[in-house]
Amino acid sequence: MATIIQNGIIVTASETFQADIKIDNGKINMISNQITGSNEDTILDATNKYVLPGLIDPHTHLGIKGTLDAFETGTRAAAAGGITTIINYTDPDNSQTFLEDLTEWKEKAQNALIDYGFHSIINKCDKDVLEQISKLPDEGVTSIKLFMAYKENMVNDEELYLLMKAAKKAGVVTNIHAENGSVIDCLIEEALSSNNTKPIYHAYTRPPATEAEATARALRIAEITGAPAYIVHITCEEALKEFVRAKEKGVNAFGETCPQYLVLNEEYLKQEEKEAVKYICSPPLRTNKDQEALWHNIKSGSISTIGSDHASHPYVNGKENGINNFTKAPNGLPGIESTLLLLYKYGVCEGKISMSKLVEITSQNPAKIFGLYPQKGSLNVGSDGDVVILDPNKSSIITKASQKQSTEYNVYEGMEVQGSIEYVLSRGKVIVKDNKVVGEPGSGKFLYRNKFTEQSQEGRL
Amino acid sequence: MATIIQNGIIVTASETFQADIKIDNGKINMISNQITGSNEDTILDATNKYVLPGLIDPHTHLGIKGTLDAFETGTRAAAAGGITTIINYTDPDNSQTFLEDLTEWKEKAQNALIDYGFHSIINKCDKDVLEQISKLPDEGVTSIKLFMAYKENMVNDEELYLLMKAAKKAGVVTNIHAENGSVIDCLIEEALSSNNTKPIYHAYTRPPATEAEATARALRIAEITGAPAYIVHITCEEALKEFVRAKEKGVNAFGETCPQYLVLNEEYLKQEEKEAVKYICSPPLRTNKDQEALWHNIKSGSISTIGSDHASHPYVNGKENGINNFTKAPNGLPGIESTLLLLYKYGVCEGKISMSKLVEITSQNPAKIFGLYPQKGSLNVGSDGDVVILDPNKSSIITKASQKQSTEYNVYEGMEVQGSIEYVLSRGKVIVKDNKVVGEPGSGKFLYRNKFTEQSQEGRL
Amino acid sequence: MATIIQNGIIVTASETFQADIKIDNGKINMISNQITGSNEDTILDATNKYVLPGLIDPHTHLGIKGTLDAFETGTRAAAAGGITTIINYTDPDNSQTFLEDLTEWKEKAQNALIDYGFHSIINKCDKDVLEQISKLPDEGVTSIKLFMAYKENMVNDEELYLLMKAAKKAGVVTNIHAENGSVIDCLIEEALSSNNTKPIYHAYTRPPATEAEATARALRIAEITGAPAYIVHITCEEALKEFVRAKEKGVNAFGETCPQYLVLNEEYLKQEEKEAVKYICSPPLRTNKDQEALWHNIKSGSISTIGSDHASHPYVNGKENGINNFTKAPNGLPGIESTLLLLYKYGVCEGKISMSKLVEITSQNPAKIFGLYPQKGSLNVGSDGDVVILDPNKSSIITKASQKQSTEYNVYEGMEVQGSIEYVLSRGKVIVKDNKVVGEPGSGKFLYRNKFTEQSQEGRL
Amino acid sequence: MATIIQNGIIVTASETFQADIKIDNGKINMISNQITGSNEDTILDATNKYVLPGLIDPHTHLGIKGTLDAFETGTRAAAAGGITTIINYTDPDNSQTFLEDLTEWKEKAQNALIDYGFHSIINKCDKDVLEQISKLPDEGVTSIKLFMAYKENMVNDEELYLLMKAAKKAGVVTNIHAENGSVIDCLIEEALSSNNTKPIYHAYTRPPATEAEATARALRIAEITGAPAYIVHITCEEALKEFVRAKEKGVNAFGETCPQYLVLNEEYLKQEEKEAVKYICSPPLRTNKDQEALWHNIKSGSISTIGSDHASHPYVNGKENGINNFTKAPNGLPGIESTLLLLYKYGVCEGKISMSKLVEITSQNPAKIFGLYPQKGSLNVGSDGDVVILDPNKSSIITKASQKQSTEYNVYEGMEVQGSIEYVLSRGKVIVKDNKVVGEPGSGKFLYRNKFTEQSQEGRL
Ligand SMILES: [Zn+2]
Ligand SMILES: [Zn+2]
Ligand SMILES: [Zn+2]
Ligand SMILES: [Zn+2]
Ligand SMILES: [Zn+2]
Ligand SMILES: [Zn+2]
Ligand SMILES: [Zn+2]
Ligand SMILES: [Zn+2]
Repeated sequence: MATIIQNGIIVTASETFQADIKIDNGKINMISNQITGSNEDTILDATNKYVLPGLIDPHTHLGIKGTLDAFETGTRAAAAGGITTIINYTDPDNSQTFLEDLTEWKEKAQNALIDYGFHSIINKCDKDVLEQISKLPDEGVTSIKLFMAYKENMVNDEELYLLMKAAKKAGVVTNIHAENGSVIDCLIEEALSSNNTKPIYHAYTRPPATEAEATARALRIAEITGAPAYIVHITCEEALKEFVRAKEKGVNAFGETCPQYLVLNEEYLKQEEKEAVKYICSPPLRTNKDQEALWHNIKSGSISTIGSDHASHPYVNGKENGINNFTKAPNGLPGIESTLLLLYKYGVCEGKISMSKLVEITSQNPAKIFGLYPQKGSLNVGSDGDVVILDPNKSSIITKASQKQSTEYNVYEGMEVQGSIEYVLSRGKVIVKDNKVVGEPGSGKFLYRNKFTEQSQEGRL
Repeated sequence: MATIIQNGIIVTASETFQADIKIDNGKINMISNQITGSNEDTILDATNKYVLPGLIDPHTHLGIKGTLDAFETGTRAAAAGGITTIINYTDPDNSQTFLEDLTEWKEKAQNALIDYGFHSIINKCDKDVLEQISKLPDEGVTSIKLFMAYKENMVNDEELYLLMKAAKKAGVVTNIHAENGSVIDCLIEEALSSNNTKPIYHAYTRPPATEAEATARALRIAEITGAPAYIVHITCEEALKEFVRAKEKGVNAFGETCPQYLVLNEEYLKQEEKEAVKYICSPPLRTNKDQEALWHNIKSGSISTIGSDHASHPYVNGKENGINNFTKAPNGLPGIESTLLLLYKYGVCEGKISMSKLVEITSQNPAKIFGLYPQKGSLNVGSDGDVVILDPNKSSIITKASQKQSTEYNVYEGMEVQGSIEYVLSRGKVIVKDNKVVGEPGSGKFLYRNKFTEQSQEGRL
Repeated sequence: MATIIQNGIIVTASETFQADIKIDNGKINMISNQITGSNEDTILDATNKYVLPGLIDPHTHLGIKGTLDAFETGTRAAAAGGITTIINYTDPDNSQTFLEDLTEWKEKAQNALIDYGFHSIINKCDKDVLEQISKLPDEGVTSIKLFMAYKENMVNDEELYLLMKAAKKAGVVTNIHAENGSVIDCLIEEALSSNNTKPIYHAYTRPPATEAEATARALRIAEITGAPAYIVHITCEEALKEFVRAKEKGVNAFGETCPQYLVLNEEYLKQEEKEAVKYICSPPLRTNKDQEALWHNIKSGSISTIGSDHASHPYVNGKENGINNFTKAPNGLPGIESTLLLLYKYGVCEGKISMSKLVEITSQNPAKIFGLYPQKGSLNVGSDGDVVILDPNKSSIITKASQKQSTEYNVYEGMEVQGSIEYVLSRGKVIVKDNKVVGEPGSGKFLYRNKFTEQSQEGRL
Repeated sequence: MATIIQNGIIVTASETFQADIKIDNGKINMISNQITGSNEDTILDATNKYVLPGLIDPHTHLGIKGTLDAFETGTRAAAAGGITTIINYTDPDNSQTFLEDLTEWKEKAQNALIDYGFHSIINKCDKDVLEQISKLPDEGVTSIKLFMAYKENMVNDEELYLLMKAAKKAGVVTNIHAENGSVIDCLIEEALSSNNTKPIYHAYTRPPATEAEATARALRIAEITGAPAYIVHITCEEALKEFVRAKEKGVNAFGETCPQYLVLNEEYLKQEEKEAVKYICSPPLRTNKDQEALWHNIKSGSISTIGSDHASHPYVNGKENGINNFTKAPNGLPGIESTLLLLYKYGVCEGKISMSKLVEITSQNPAKIFGLYPQKGSLNVGSDGDVVILDPNKSSIITKASQKQSTEYNVYEGMEVQGSIEYVLSRGKVIVKDNKVVGEPGSGKFLYRNKFTEQSQEGRL
């Protein structure tokens, strides 16, 4: 009844070695140089293959109204891509408190194929909200998200201060979408009034300076409050400079980027409008120079995690609305299932990062930051048996035809990737086999995450 | 006949978890949540204790003429301090080639209690020398050391260039003692001619600017040649700034510091001469501000390793000669046995570094840089069973009375340290038990080290 | 009828030399090595004395309701201190447009003894305001001021953007009070609710990070809009770092500091409350380390000007209100008459700056930035005959007893200063003689200032 | 008998204004708005023309054996280009002491048309040399030059230290040619042994890292000794970074660049060998990015001066020798007469620097650094009447045909320049009139320069 992975190349956040792994009752309970199983055991041969801890995607938007992937299809696609845990964003619903809203989200997620947690988006600040933050950890949620852009959701500096302070006190990490929405709105108005409506103006009206400014400001408030701040989707060199400066001063800052910012660029927004609208996301795609800066900061350890920021906006009645006016297209890209193979091909195979770094940023670091470690994010004895077996020798082409996610398009269409995800295990159970998802809806569990403490960051201190 | 360590808190360079370890035939072959042994096995209970990979001291000077610790006493002291591998410096002997010299050093080391390797010091550059460098890896030695100070040994820039270039080609790391000896000699002459002969003038005539300059110059030559450069004993903020700048530019640079630069300062050189002379080492002890910079750069990952730079100069007919003239005292401090407990107390317990960082800098990193990984520097399946069991709850005072090294004095005399080294295992065999060294002279083996490759640095890329 | 200054040491922004100066019809018309006058001429002997262009104080708050110095007493004190031009801030009055308000201010100033101009404070942003900005230069006003702190006056990022953009288009400089008022208000509320009401909490609730953040943000918006931005009263190293970074990137940024930030520190706020309340100003007094950073950045050219930020709040029914609650004391210090002697003593005599730098920052730079050059800020042929004759050999003690300004206290009470202001000339007419003000109320003129252009900055490019 | 320049636009290092200038007995004695002369006076009309202080070229190599321009032709070319003072390098002659050598150089220069001084090149260090340095100022020479490259002339770090220390004590500035000659020689040997002999390899074997390293090292020794260090011909961004870092730390550092590094680039070395050899100079021509960095650092004030580094190597039996082996071509470019027009066109007209900055770097700064101010480098009353009248409205093409220097080629051949040098005055006497040199050989005087003091730098502190 145990699962045994034999003869694989095990990769941890700092080492690579060959050994067998045994998983029993959902937990890893042995690593040894030769583990033989009984007839009852599932034996997986990983000879010449990498054995990685299952990926944790800390930035997904499943189940958002108007998008195509709710939890079943979304987590199926995730599983196919080697992801065994997601932390999904709620959508603020101002008709109820955000704690009530959280309860609904837990229900929505019940048909997930993989384990999941939530970040609570908060878009206002009053006594009730501050009070509820203190109760969030009891609900198993230890992170909130604040926006510095988007008029309907953005908080001002006073609110940022009060919410981050309350979050810190509660052991809750504050995730921040860092763009200066006020300045961006001015730039958009200027663009539209000059009839500059093409998709590339989405990028031109959200220049790096607006992201860098908001990043710096958020981290100043983190500095003053002492609160841990997690900057989501960092996209450019300008913002990275601010981020690194704060981190060097000792600010409790964590940075995330996304595969799209590493492998796509603003040229995609300069295509024919029909095509370009698919690539509208915020912050926007940047330049190749920014890509290099992101890779460099992953390697140097400044950037801690990779999130897909998966948002499955439809093309019809969605992206296409932006064709004559970039502001009408919904912001966000689908891509949950491609993270691992993109990073393996364009990061590891191209010499930008090591296998250990890949494991660190896609699994161990999100686990540590978001209170899931050591249950998740590790292949050590005692951890959940969430495992990916990757055959490094096969390659493939990303296409809509073979994708699991529900959108009518794939933003990585035609890109070559390296590696084949042979098996994915969730708590010892095979959920992907030979690239086919065999896990069952509802087998994923809600994860009660631990509070943030500095001590929980062991290994990065 | 196996050795089993039960119930300990295993610390790796990135994680901490509880499990049992089994060592068979000198190699770790199992990590599991419950390993029970047979009667023949040695069972060690590590409940509530840390289980660490044995330390690698990459900077020792055992067996130098005029010093008190040759390999037997020196490695006994090392073992008592949790060190299971040393990489010792040869002493250049210009009556023979350095390859011939190496053969003699291998013989001298045969009564070591722990495993060992060598760095070859080179103090000249001609065709023969360049030719021999290419043969060094065949002798199991994959690092050389060059001096930028000390008239009798220093190489000039042309030699630095040619030697580093040859070393790179051979897969050999170049270790560099980085101080501008020419400028220092001028400063010393000025001091002596002004009758400034007290020990503190040892520090004043080797100011941070001289270390920083040489560090920058060495790394420029590394930049131009593309050679990997390992800067030994970095001591100060000024030098660190140069080091970090080069590293950020992509220079293949590695940095080492020593416990004495982390816990002692130049005030020790201002004591009464009789006492102060003990503290003469090069580069000299610095200020508390420099200590902070060193800790900060260990935490940030800029500094990769800790070496003791153990040099057991006697007091009588040694250190005491410096009483009336600081230039007459031999340079270097004894201290091989105190590294682990000093770092645990003043690093981990004071919140400056995590346990994982301690393992990374004292074991995993030196193993990776100097071609010993994964045989050494790891607790994974397949690695040598070199293990330290540390009881974190006991404390002690460092004194000459209880030291193992052979000097008549201890530079850390009276300092409190935390943690007790209960057991040390070398390839599965207990060599320290309850703070007593039980290993036998001659049981240490010469280690054939692998050539340096960028790929061997997995985990830091 | 001409005025001739003989044999003085003339100081310009780049040179020092000995010569005579002749002023005719209010303008300098000759510099020569020997100018002899007729009986009708006024001859001033400046042997062994410095001859400087009259100071321009670009930051004064004369005529503010509740303060003690309106234009007559305020400009009398200014003249006594060697100031021959002020640029005074209006006070926004929301019952009328700011252009109407400006007309009132011009009337209020009619009894000034020295020449004057205005910066218009703007505290809101709508179509009318944006429209009026374009008309400001016609009124002779080519600078506005925006606040990022103080709830009643502060503008948000959208307003900052729109106002700076409009100002740029109009050839108008934007002056910015850069403190993050939102965060500061949170910190004040925390302090008061913890009963931390002493004057030093004024400093603790406005930490350097709040000034640095706002400075960086303002300059980001300057970067995006391309507008020239003049940061008033920079006080600390943290803010300077942001300022210098922006300037190095090519942002059109100018920086001002004030004598109080150069010679006073936060220790003054830790005195007995009765005394400490006098020192409440915003941003608050900082540390000695910040003073050093300010001097260093004056010397390096990053900081362009010195303003007194003179605000003559009374002690009775003013400052004293803060004794039990720091928030009740009006913000701002009097000090218009001490700028020159403080800078001479603590800058020039202590070797921090040269005489030429003193002239550059107190006269030539404000003239160039604010559109008064070459009429003001120069001793060249063609410029107004605004001159100070400073005897460097006399010294004195600043005391309330001998001050000209109207407050019941002097924040520099008891400080020694060097140099004696023997004569001050306004357009060739003696207005101060032997430290006595002999100028007449109403002899000052409103100055129509030129629009800002990059070309007008000649000498700094 | 006076000379009066009427109605010109006078440019000083910080200002631009319109006035008349009167020069009497060789000295400026009046600046006024209307100076009318007598019949005996020379009246020059400068309406709509710039009136500048004569240029000081602090880096010339006239009179070197094997070159074509000795003092007569060289200073004629200089005068034609608006230069009224040169500071020429001696050539070390090891058959006599450098003081004896200096006497010879003073004789050689007696037929100069303009005023001149010398920098003494020193290529060794012994007691005698150190002793002679102390006597240099008595000979009117207050600067020495040391080489860090070129085997026959370079000094090592000990010598650098001792010479700079002695120079500082004597009030003498140390000029430094900063390239790491040891590393360069290795790179050259590698290039030649790989048959890489084309002119572009001159650049590839002297990469920016070798200049940056030497610059940093020289300035470290300046830091330790406290000596003023003047880095000649800075060429690249890498070296500038080191330079600026040192300057910001307070090192007494001055930087020079040359017109060739501002307007030529390494593409010139990639031309056909016959042409490319003309462009061999050390350090070599760099890239456009380096040109931008140089302009930026001139504007920011980091670079203080412009020298032509004029070396009139012949093509026949000179440059042509490098055709098949770049190391055989003499290093150095002719160009003394083009500095002003090149800087006016590519600096001022292209918006990179202001007219005042041009005056500062070509006249006032070299005068201050090298002890000639206020006699030279200024248009103030009391200064020498060295003046250039520049008509900004004419343009021309640089060609060998119209050059005054003696080489068979012109490295700026075909480049357009702006401005026409109408008149040049040396101590009030017209030496260039309508682009024709009318000065007489022998009318130039040797200048006794003052010792270096920090105070002499007034205006830059
Ligand atoms: Zn977002
Ligand atoms: Zn998102
Ligand atoms: Zn050493
Ligand atoms: Zn050593
Ligand atoms: Zn203010
Ligand atoms: Zn103010
Ligand atoms: Zn040179
Ligand atoms: Zn030269």
